[in-house]
Amino acid sequence: MDIGFIGLGHMGEPLAANLLKAGHRLVIWNRSQASAQRLAAQGAQIATTPEEALGTGIVFSMLADNDAIRAVLIDSGVMAKAAKESVHVNMSTISVAYAQELTAQHEKLGITYIAAPVLGRPDVAAAGKLNILAAGPAAAIDRVQPLLDVLGQKTWRLGETASHANVIKLAANVLLASAVETIAETATFVSAHGVAAADLLQIISNSTFPGPVYQGYGKLIVEDRFDPPGFKAGLALKDVRLALAASDDKATPMPIASLVRDSLLDALAHQEGDKDLAVLGRVAARRAGR
Amino acid sequence: MDIGFIGLGHMGEPLAANLLKAGHRLVIWNRSQASAQRLAAQGAQIATTPEEALGTGIVFSMLADNDAIRAVLIDSGVMAKAAKESVHVNMSTISVAYAQELTAQHEKLGITYIAAPVLGRPDVAAAGKLNILAAGPAAAIDRVQPLLDVLGQKTWRLGETASHANVIKLAANVLLASAVETIAETATFVSAHGVAAADLLQIISNSTFPGPVYQGYGKLIVEDRFDPPGFKAGLALKDVRLALAASDDKATPMPIASLVRDSLLDALAHQEGDKDLAVLGRVAARRAGR
Amino acid sequence: MDIGFIGLGHMGEPLAANLLKAGHRLVIWNRSQASAQRLAAQGAQIATTPEEALGTGIVFSMLADNDAIRAVLIDSGVMAKAAKESVHVNMSTISVAYAQELTAQHEKLGITYIAAPVLGRPDVAAAGKLNILAAGPAAAIDRVQPLLDVLGQKTWRLGETASHANVIKLAANVLLASAVETIAETATFVSAHGVAAADLLQIISNSTFPGPVYQGYGKLIVEDRFDPPGFKAGLALKDVRLALAASDDKATPMPIASLVRDSLLDALAHQEGDKDLAVLGRVAARRAGR
Amino acid sequence: MDIGFIGLGHMGEPLAANLLKAGHRLVIWNRSQASAQRLAAQGAQIATTPEEALGTGIVFSMLADNDAIRAVLIDSGVMAKAAKESVHVNMSTISVAYAQELTAQHEKLGITYIAAPVLGRPDVAAAGKLNILAAGPAAAIDRVQPLLDVLGQKTWRLGETASHANVIKLAANVLLASAVETIAETATFVSAHGVAAADLLQIISNSTFPGPVYQGYGKLIVEDRFDPPGFKAGLALKDVRLALAASDDKATPMPIASLVRDSLLDALAHQEGDKDLAVLGRVAARRAGR
Repeated sequence: MDIGFIGLGHMGEPLAANLLKAGHRLVIWNRSQASAQRLAAQGAQIATTPEEALGTGIVFSMLADNDAIRAVLIDSGVMAKAAKESVHVNMSTISVAYAQELTAQHEKLGITYIAAPVLGRPDVAAAGKLNILAAGPAAAIDRVQPLLDVLGQKTWRLGETASHANVIKLAANVLLASAVETIAETATFVSAHGVAAADLLQIISNSTFPGPVYQGYGKLIVEDRFDPPGFKAGLALKDVRLALAASDDKATPMPIASLVRDSLLDALAHQEGDKDLAVLGRVAARRAGR
Repeated sequence: MDIGFIGLGHMGEPLAANLLKAGHRLVIWNRSQASAQRLAAQGAQIATTPEEALGTGIVFSMLADNDAIRAVLIDSGVMAKAAKESVHVNMSTISVAYAQELTAQHEKLGITYIAAPVLGRPDVAAAGKLNILAAGPAAAIDRVQPLLDVLGQKTWRLGETASHANVIKLAANVLLASAVETIAETATFVSAHGVAAADLLQIISNSTFPGPVYQGYGKLIVEDRFDPPGFKAGLALKDVRLALAASDDKATPMPIASLVRDSLLDALAHQEGDKDLAVLGRVAARRAGR
Repeated sequence: MDIGFIGLGHMGEPLAANLLKAGHRLVIWNRSQASAQRLAAQGAQIATTPEEALGTGIVFSMLADNDAIRAVLIDSGVMAKAAKESVHVNMSTISVAYAQELTAQHEKLGITYIAAPVLGRPDVAAAGKLNILAAGPAAAIDRVQPLLDVLGQKTWRLGETASHANVIKLAANVLLASAVETIAETATFVSAHGVAAADLLQIISNSTFPGPVYQGYGKLIVEDRFDPPGFKAGLALKDVRLALAASDDKATPMPIASLVRDSLLDALAHQEGDKDLAVLGRVAARRAGR
Repeated sequence: MDIGFIGLGHMGEPLAANLLKAGHRLVIWNRSQASAQRLAAQGAQIATTPEEALGTGIVFSMLADNDAIRAVLIDSGVMAKAAKESVHVNMSTISVAYAQELTAQHEKLGITYIAAPVLGRPDVAAAGKLNILAAGPAAAIDRVQPLLDVLGQKTWRLGETASHANVIKLAANVLLASAVETIAETATFVSAHGVAAADLLQIISNSTFPGPVYQGYGKLIVEDRFDPPGFKAGLALKDVRLALAASDDKATPMPIASLVRDSLLDALAHQEGDKDLAVLGRVAARRAGR
């Protein structure tokens, strides 16, 4: 299939590479050139403008945030020039309100909008093991499903309302960041009592809390190791902010998310925004004078 | 082996039953009689005083809290009458400070004190699948290890300082209660946005958050079903309180535990203390006017 | 002096009225007409477009929020048509970031921008007793000082950077909302112990906490009376949100503001957004099942 | 009048001195001798045992906490030896639960128990300007009222239930500590935006928040000056802890008090427990990397 791909950062590049490996023809566009060149070496065709990438009729986007989408696709007028009946699969993590706005704008333009944010870090993306949260018109998702099957181990279908996928994505990241905050606090707590945090983490990740979050972030916190970052604290804060904004829209208190926001700001205030989210371990230790 | 067992409540009864099934001779004591009678029917010998249960030389206790231990074993003078070189395996969830006090008191009396609190609900205890957190003199734990092997699927050895096992136990329950609080908040959040909380829970418990906590409590929250309780909100609050007290002793801020305390108090204020911990789902919904 | 006045809501109308009473000639503009008609009856000239109000060379604005300013003055192109060397005194409570943006836009247009948000409710405005927080070019503030003297009992001069006045305004409202939250929590606390909340409020407002906040909001909470609203919970939330956004910009954790946000959202979720900020008393009582 | 006075620390010494100055005969007892010697130089008679101080029939106590009261007066058997119809005026800040316990114990002994905790720091005590919160049997309070009039500028009568005075005292200290926390956070917030915290404090303490708390603690925070302490952070934490315990007893969530607890623990973790409560300013600054 001919596919456009816009946005080739830490997440976009491995996704595009997987589509190439699966035998698809890709027309790619990125603001900076290094990753585009790497993908060209794997057979991708570099577009000189985003419009070109849209020319394929199916375009994936994986951009940093609302503002990047707005700048590259909307305010630029690019999307308005896309052919009617094009399909836009937006994998970017954006706000719920902006997902709704985008849905309406695409509808007006006669373009099908699918929200398909993902759960998983870049290494998971590279391995094709992402969980994909897809929402939008069912027929259109059916059409791109073979591509989503290349990109993830599982696509979760969340109905016709595109923004619902973004709601789940933000909830999942609040769950993630809160779990890491709790690991951080309890690790500090047991350490303060002379107990090895490694013991706590080993026990819980082999009993009540199996799975990658408690094991993975737990290990980083125990080892006080936050580089290289898998998921940056600053990006986690971005998502918590989006969740708080969406909770605000629906008058839904989220005290845990609020608390995590403040801990992440503490990290940023200490120049730790580019470190792994596990740096919340250092924030908790700092609060305890350790 | 001849074993004393004191405290036959929701957790103590299935533990004692498992020891009986494994062929041990039990001398049991409980404040109320119903559970003792049931165990007598399975071959246990009912003691008329706690002293008798201590006469076996190895006694397990599974009492409700600090006060119950103090009343039954310490202030009563019972422990002071135990034979030198007796071993007391205390599986109760008690405060860190009291664990330290008990250790010192036992040492003075020439009795070996082992802390062995557990992770798992009564149904897990009945299945012999508990995780046991054991700390105390290594030789003594070695001696009771065959009994612990009957009671749990795994014994985690946490060194010679008995109270360290209690520290880990409290940390584990803070992790548990915080996870449930976060599930509650995010379930309310997605519901407020018109997304089925069941979708969120299905996705996360099949991706980033496998394991019994997210799946089990998630299901209860989604189904708004809090009876019969597996782990009562009021008992979870008890443990969070103990964690906060222990964090206070070491000047370790624990904002997450503080937040969960207040949500659990909200539950109690609404006569939900005897409902399952998952009732935090109702607390979060109430805050959001849902 | 000839003065334009844009925005005649609960705060703008009494301000404009006071300028009229002081003998100034006002050209007024408002989106809706009722308040404009009332002021016309007091001698104001109704402008048919915002441009007309700007024709005077000195224009005050008291609009609801960023969006209202943007819609009426900026996106509309109105400000761009103002005469060079006009002075715009913006009394609206807006975000710090937008205050900075407005400052830059005005500078580009050759128009002097003064930020002059106020402390005080509509009744205080009517009495001419506001505290005015003024920042911007000193010479320009000097020029409008006689007008500010009509509007407030005191002008606090905060330097040349206009947005600094907005920073102080937001901080003051966080202090206010947090104080009300604390009154609410402590009133509920003493009530739960069988002590009259009125006793608590009488004691503290006559000892450690004199002044209008503890006395005024305390009285409303004690009397469980939230209508008519002096300062609406929904508007307080708007300001807390702006403070949180500004704290985010500078990586400054504000746990108290976060907590108050969630309590105010609880109020909104219970259709109490149009009630007085003191309705936090009801939120606290609800949490305690009272 | 002949009066016993037990507990001559930072608060007790100036109180006792004022009673002496007013012409009363004091029999004093204190664990350590320095302050007793100073008061003896002013005419007080030093008791060699607490019993002697109780021999006067009216005894005031101003001890550090529950444990001190328990050790000196109850477990020691001292109070049990007091003459029937003695009056004990306990000015110490103790827990609500212990106040109830003490009331019952005194009743059993036939001794009248009056709770009379105070609002105000040692310098306020020295000036005789305390606010006294008195609860207990009306006739007994009437009898000691002339003495309370010496010690404070105002006695607030809070009914017959002694513990009610302690409830109000704890609520007042939660209000105090929360106000200081909020000052700390907002001072940090404005500083982060390049605005002088002194400007914020000057404005609010001259407008919405007059009175000693905002002015006094605000000044200390602005000046980053926490020695010598007026009211130590560690003592404030003690009172917040008692408030949390009392809120727990009545299932009353107090999120603000919980938050302040954690900030105060942060101070203690950084060896700032003996600094003035205003050191919360440093905690907030630290969180913001300042």
